Amino acid sequence: MSELVKRYTASVNFDKRLGLVDIEGSLAHAAMLAKQNIISVRDLADINRGMAQIKSEIENGEFNWQLDLEDVHLNIEARLTALVGAAGKRLHTGRSRNDQVATDIRLWLRAQIDDVVMALSQLRSGLLTVAEREADTILPGFTHLQVAQPITFGHHLLAYVNMFGRDVERFLDCRKRTNLLPLGAAALAGTTYPIDREFVAQQLGFEGVCENSLDAVSDRDFAIEFCAAASLLMMHVSRLSEELIIWMSPRVGFIDLADRFCTGSSIMPQKKNPDVPELARGKTGRVYGDLMSLLTLMKGQPLAYNKDNQEDKEPLFDAADTVLETVLIFTEMVQGIVVKPESMRAAALQGFSTATDLADYLVKKGLPFRDAHEAVAHAVKICTQKKCDLADLTLDELRAATDLAPEQQALIDPDVSHCLTLEGSVAARNHIGGTAPNQVRAAIERLKNALK
Amino acid sequence: MSELVKRYTASVNFDKRLGLVDIEGSLAHAAMLAKQNIISVRDLADINRGMAQIKSEIENGEFNWQLDLEDVHLNIEARLTALVGAAGKRLHTGRSRNDQVATDIRLWLRAQIDDVVMALSQLRSGLLTVAEREADTILPGFTHLQVAQPITFGHHLLAYVNMFGRDVERFLDCRKRTNLLPLGAAALAGTTYPIDREFVAQQLGFEGVCENSLDAVSDRDFAIEFCAAASLLMMHVSRLSEELIIWMSPRVGFIDLADRFCTGSSIMPQKKNPDVPELARGKTGRVYGDLMSLLTLMKGQPLAYNKDNQEDKEPLFDAADTVLETVLIFTEMVQGIVVKPESMRAAALQGFSTATDLADYLVKKGLPFRDAHEAVAHAVKICTQKKCDLADLTLDELRAATDLAPEQQALIDPDVSHCLTLEGSVAARNHIGGTAPNQVRAAIERLKNALK
Amino acid sequence: MSELVKRYTASVNFDKRLGLVDIEGSLAHAAMLAKQNIISVRDLADINRGMAQIKSEIENGEFNWQLDLEDVHLNIEARLTALVGAAGKRLHTGRSRNDQVATDIRLWLRAQIDDVVMALSQLRSGLLTVAEREADTILPGFTHLQVAQPITFGHHLLAYVNMFGRDVERFLDCRKRTNLLPLGAAALAGTTYPIDREFVAQQLGFEGVCENSLDAVSDRDFAIEFCAAASLLMMHVSRLSEELIIWMSPRVGFIDLADRFCTGSSIMPQKKNPDVPELARGKTGRVYGDLMSLLTLMKGQPLAYNKDNQEDKEPLFDAADTVLETVLIFTEMVQGIVVKPESMRAAALQGFSTATDLADYLVKKGLPFRDAHEAVAHAVKICTQKKCDLADLTLDELRAATDLAPEQQALIDPDVSHCLTLEGSVAARNHIGGTAPNQVRAAIERLKNALK
Amino acid sequence: MSELVKRYTASVNFDKRLGLVDIEGSLAHAAMLAKQNIISVRDLADINRGMAQIKSEIENGEFNWQLDLEDVHLNIEARLTALVGAAGKRLHTGRSRNDQVATDIRLWLRAQIDDVVMALSQLRSGLLTVAEREADTILPGFTHLQVAQPITFGHHLLAYVNMFGRDVERFLDCRKRTNLLPLGAAALAGTTYPIDREFVAQQLGFEGVCENSLDAVSDRDFAIEFCAAASLLMMHVSRLSEELIIWMSPRVGFIDLADRFCTGSSIMPQKKNPDVPELARGKTGRVYGDLMSLLTLMKGQPLAYNKDNQEDKEPLFDAADTVLETVLIFTEMVQGIVVKPESMRAAALQGFSTATDLADYLVKKGLPFRDAHEAVAHAVKICTQKKCDLADLTLDELRAATDLAPEQQALIDPDVSHCLTLEGSVAARNHIGGTAPNQVRAAIERLKNALK
Repeated sequence: MSELVKRYTASVNFDKRLGLVDIEGSLAHAAMLAKQNIISVRDLADINRGMAQIKSEIENGEFNWQLDLEDVHLNIEARLTALVGAAGKRLHTGRSRNDQVATDIRLWLRAQIDDVVMALSQLRSGLLTVAEREADTILPGFTHLQVAQPITFGHHLLAYVNMFGRDVERFLDCRKRTNLLPLGAAALAGTTYPIDREFVAQQLGFEGVCENSLDAVSDRDFAIEFCAAASLLMMHVSRLSEELIIWMSPRVGFIDLADRFCTGSSIMPQKKNPDVPELARGKTGRVYGDLMSLLTLMKGQPLAYNKDNQEDKEPLFDAADTVLETVLIFTEMVQGIVVKPESMRAAALQGFSTATDLADYLVKKGLPFRDAHEAVAHAVKICTQKKCDLADLTLDELRAATDLAPEQQALIDPDVSHCLTLEGSVAARNHIGGTAPNQVRAAIERLKNALK
Repeated sequence: MSELVKRYTASVNFDKRLGLVDIEGSLAHAAMLAKQNIISVRDLADINRGMAQIKSEIENGEFNWQLDLEDVHLNIEARLTALVGAAGKRLHTGRSRNDQVATDIRLWLRAQIDDVVMALSQLRSGLLTVAEREADTILPGFTHLQVAQPITFGHHLLAYVNMFGRDVERFLDCRKRTNLLPLGAAALAGTTYPIDREFVAQQLGFEGVCENSLDAVSDRDFAIEFCAAASLLMMHVSRLSEELIIWMSPRVGFIDLADRFCTGSSIMPQKKNPDVPELARGKTGRVYGDLMSLLTLMKGQPLAYNKDNQEDKEPLFDAADTVLETVLIFTEMVQGIVVKPESMRAAALQGFSTATDLADYLVKKGLPFRDAHEAVAHAVKICTQKKCDLADLTLDELRAATDLAPEQQALIDPDVSHCLTLEGSVAARNHIGGTAPNQVRAAIERLKNALK
Repeated sequence: MSELVKRYTASVNFDKRLGLVDIEGSLAHAAMLAKQNIISVRDLADINRGMAQIKSEIENGEFNWQLDLEDVHLNIEARLTALVGAAGKRLHTGRSRNDQVATDIRLWLRAQIDDVVMALSQLRSGLLTVAEREADTILPGFTHLQVAQPITFGHHLLAYVNMFGRDVERFLDCRKRTNLLPLGAAALAGTTYPIDREFVAQQLGFEGVCENSLDAVSDRDFAIEFCAAASLLMMHVSRLSEELIIWMSPRVGFIDLADRFCTGSSIMPQKKNPDVPELARGKTGRVYGDLMSLLTLMKGQPLAYNKDNQEDKEPLFDAADTVLETVLIFTEMVQGIVVKPESMRAAALQGFSTATDLADYLVKKGLPFRDAHEAVAHAVKICTQKKCDLADLTLDELRAATDLAPEQQALIDPDVSHCLTLEGSVAARNHIGGTAPNQVRAAIERLKNALK
Repeated sequence: MSELVKRYTASVNFDKRLGLVDIEGSLAHAAMLAKQNIISVRDLADINRGMAQIKSEIENGEFNWQLDLEDVHLNIEARLTALVGAAGKRLHTGRSRNDQVATDIRLWLRAQIDDVVMALSQLRSGLLTVAEREADTILPGFTHLQVAQPITFGHHLLAYVNMFGRDVERFLDCRKRTNLLPLGAAALAGTTYPIDREFVAQQLGFEGVCENSLDAVSDRDFAIEFCAAASLLMMHVSRLSEELIIWMSPRVGFIDLADRFCTGSSIMPQKKNPDVPELARGKTGRVYGDLMSLLTLMKGQPLAYNKDNQEDKEPLFDAADTVLETVLIFTEMVQGIVVKPESMRAAALQGFSTATDLADYLVKKGLPFRDAHEAVAHAVKICTQKKCDLADLTLDELRAATDLAPEQQALIDPDVSHCLTLEGSVAARNHIGGTAPNQVRAAIERLKNALK
């Protein structure tokens, strides 16, 4: 075999990462073989002893991975045989690399999912802390990047807490389907040895066994499903990143990020580039690409096992690493967000963001919806000419500005002034899901309890 | 507005498909408004009456959709106002098109998911019927498209029953996250009216409400998650299609498909092109593309609502239509699979597919794994020279062919013949997930019960 | 055949769009058949006559497309035979639907490419007009959405003129590979009739013939390449859209778009949602999805023709329609951009955007690069404390602010004031590709000439 | 900065690969600075000396890359300054990392393109050698994986020579747009130094300069275009791989691959798994994913430079490595294809693959196309009953089998036998692009000349 062919077909350079779970799976398999009298108790002891040493070699970076031995499985088996002799050769009884590798990836991915879920919970906690602190801080809510209605910053952050909550759910749903044992499928058809698959599953903490041997060795749904969940997560991250970047842009200036998540300019000390959110936004592409790789990989593959599947690992590793690191770094970063409430307030006052509230006020006083809207539009036009806000008009000016009939103008009472303020506006959206600070605080309580 | 701009920005050409769910959502909203005394009981009656007529117009294809009215919502509202006057104008109180459209899509998608799940159950039932019929029919199991070990056709089909079972689970997981009410989020911040969101949710059969108003109007996770589940489903379909196509290829000739799923040649009457599996395999690309469209669409969008989101519908519609039609047609098709057991058998006999069984036999007789493998390899080489199968050798020939030491040869008893037959081989893989016919039948029973 | 199968497998609902090019290809084929004496001159006359009528029926929307006749080709052939009898049946001599459809798509796509290229040229012209008008208008150039250095708006727009210029090149490169004749490949192997492929190619304006019959019927590279070029174009559009949306956001306020590309709010007359750029940004996903569909479609297909390929049309049609409409609408829109130079100027003055110029000034006076940078950083810090710009300092204040040694301070002459102004800064970047207005004007001239 | 942030934001782990081109670019930049008297001749000499040493350190694997120095540029600059002092600090005059990295990637990619193009030419040559050897070897041409018409294996391989030829064209088209100099754009707006960009371009072998500074630093089209071309190439590879895998499957058995591209089974010595084609088919997904990553990365990015772009390198490196290695290994592999002509012939005889030829024969004798088809269909049906081929019938039997009127039967002369043979069938497709051996040989000649 030429060096080129060897390099092209070997996987040890990346699948050595599965070393520890490969050992874990082998130990459970060996325990079962001994229990079923397929290998001797002595063989089992040899295997356990040899594997303990190999584990320690791997953990200490002393294991000598060899390209000539192709993959993680053969490297470890060869070393085991070198260490303990014949027992090492018996370990592979009743299994095949096809079901072995599927078991390894599932064990590895299960641990990754647990890490990501834990990290997401911490990110959500971090966001909740900031949201609670800023439950009354008003900024403009945007649609189409245009000022629409005032909201609170705490309320805004809760949107992301909800998104990341759905991500957690999806990873846990994926975990259910990952956490099943393929071992026992052997090459593709099962084995003629009297194996006990449920025992192995139990040893490894799997919730059950893959119930069809062909499916067991050919199924990579869990890897794709993980990448799909990871893509959605990165999509959420990209949205938060986009907002952080815009909020830090000098013309907007709503927030500041801690220096260690930014780079500066040697001659413009005030300048701060939001490197981390930008990179995270960019890494969205990487995870989308991983998903597309795996979907393409599996398209049209006949059963049961084809060498194509060796290509399943790198995209999966990359997606898992990317989301985990990104969530960890965002957890640190969001807690360092410094809010600039004056800039937020100034922006919220700029765009007649309480015009809707005035219309609602008129409707509640009995005006038909469309008439109310026309009246408000007229008032806004007057303010635009005067270069002032609705709240800047006196009651009489406001009445006149609506251009309503006198008896309708009379419906406007002094209490209107409250609904024209930013505080009045947010407080009025007082129902589950609304931006009223007491609703935000109630939502935070619910989310905190759910996170416990 | 120029015709071009109008055509570019209007959505009624495709979102009119949401007409009936738009009405359904509006009726629940109106009922709530009346209950909360935001509109009068008389207005509610008018709205109900008008909507009943509009519904009938849509169902009968008589509704006059107008491009000038931009989208499904404005078309229906305009018609309602034309029919019932002022009440029509009050319907929009306390909501916005942002939360309205999100509600519509969720209602629509929920129904689609139910249809797909139902269709998948029928497809699985259909496959189970064939699997039961062919639980003993032996064909070669392939790895790398090379003959590996004999399996039964029933066992092979169960692999797909399992795949489609995971698809069902994923659609149901997606349904949970789809089945929540966005209405009440209004434009993005909630509304100042005293609405009752839980009441609306209940009316519409939603399991709960979206708990953050910004998230409610900007969330399209459910659409992406649906397309991800649909992509996995189509991936499975593409694998089954690939196999059907290969199995129908004349050199393989394992099966035949009913004529109505194929096209022929006017001058080669024996020729049959497996059109339906080929098309289905091709449609995989379409659904992957829909998924990628939606992921791209949402990348980096700042909150809360942007017009970009109008582009969410067509990919979702396309993915839903494609998977539903494909599953329906496959349900019909798989039940018409005609098996050619002689071709299958001939193929299974071609590749020494029971060599593993002989090795296992020797190991069980006490030979070390590696020695057993060497012995079998030697015997296979002899057979290759003789152009015969292992099962064609007499006991003495077989013993000699192993090139083992005489005392080891003596371990080979007459009972070896059983394990060299195809039937013996499949029967020996007798554990959960294995290809032994009794295991296949047991698996079918379990699956049938689960499908009830 | 059930209705479901028929609907699933028929293509006439979308490939009828190829009607006119199908006729064009048939006429050239028939002319060749007659020239080669494969059909009679009388047959040719019949075919020409029949096709003239069919063409007119299609153009007038009178043609009766039938699902039962499956696709555009059989629909037209059946109608031709109904109109002219036996000659219609002879038209298909020496060809197959496999090479016929490949010819149709190429003819159709060639015309689409020409339309897109023409539209892109108009868009570039439109951008050049605005760029010329705004060659001196200064705004901040951003990196990381932070103010970096002043540039001119004309210069900024030229970046897009260059991007769209590369798009034109790519479409033309794709056109070369599209503009080759597959006809003559028949089903996959060529035909036994004495055909003249070069003649047909010439008739249809193709630059040559596909030189291998299997490749001719199975090649869809041109469709994928078109979608790849379209994806790059939409990526550029998405960047321009993103900028337009940010520039229109009230805190930035650099530009305004004509009302007809925006929607407003009924009660906030000053509010304008940049609908067209948002939609265009969203449509990026759609075209990326089309590309991914086609790449997936072709993955792993064995030669020569498989029914999968019927799925090639809808993504291609969708991508072509989307880019053409988008470019046309952007051509209109960009010419209506209203620039707000004061907002731009105010933003450019906010971030010490000329600090780099001061550093360059000091380097040119002999200071080492790093020392110069330190001196400027010090001066910026002083200005930040004083809440003023570098240009607001007197010469003495500036010298002192650098914290340089006295003899180095003396290097700062009164002429420094020029380089601290926005105008001085942009004028100084005076080399090819730089933002100096005279360079911008020179670039515009070159681009205009190239567009002629 | 925490370790996590450092690891997340640093790029040196992957961009160190650009080390040598970074030096190449810096040397040209320094030469220009000296020529323009921006730095001294002595500085230039220092820089040249220092860089020579760094180059040698990198080539010998002795360079000490430091994560703390973030990226390839700062690592090299720091080392240069350590080696030569002040001159090292002056090297960065008039440029920025934004234009520097863009220059580096373009230099690197240009070299990669040249390698890929060279490798593709060798692959095409290799295929031509086999095609020439097998210009007369007949196998069935498939449509829908059903036997359609006989073709020659040489003709079949030419389809791939044509595909890979288009790939070469696309890479060269991409090269044109890659081979332009961004340097001089500095951060985004150009520089105030009197630089000479054309000189630098010439030094580095670029065909021209990027004509707009914002575009120069933000453009990554070339990377995407490369990945699109690479995706098309891998799509072709996946099709060839699919065919090799099917052809090697025992029921088909058309070819054999050299052992070193396959793995075997320890106990089934005759078994050969086509590992390399399977892996290559799988790697298609990886390159598609890289393309999607980059398209997503660039979507919606505002100008000019954002940190997102750091994510451009890994997908590009991965795509380039994958295609280069794949093409190199395929070049070796295809030349080792062993053809099994008897299996091919047997398969071609199985499916009435010359039925079309008989129909063409009858049409040429004057029968209308449809009548001829009916007659052939009848004859095929008779043969199916007799379990023989058309060529196995005597002239009288054949005449009778057509069920034509006696005078029409008489049109069938003894010469019909030729057109019913496989050899007669392929020889008759004798026009450019047809499968006739002399056409195949002529095509090979043309392709060989073009490759010279």
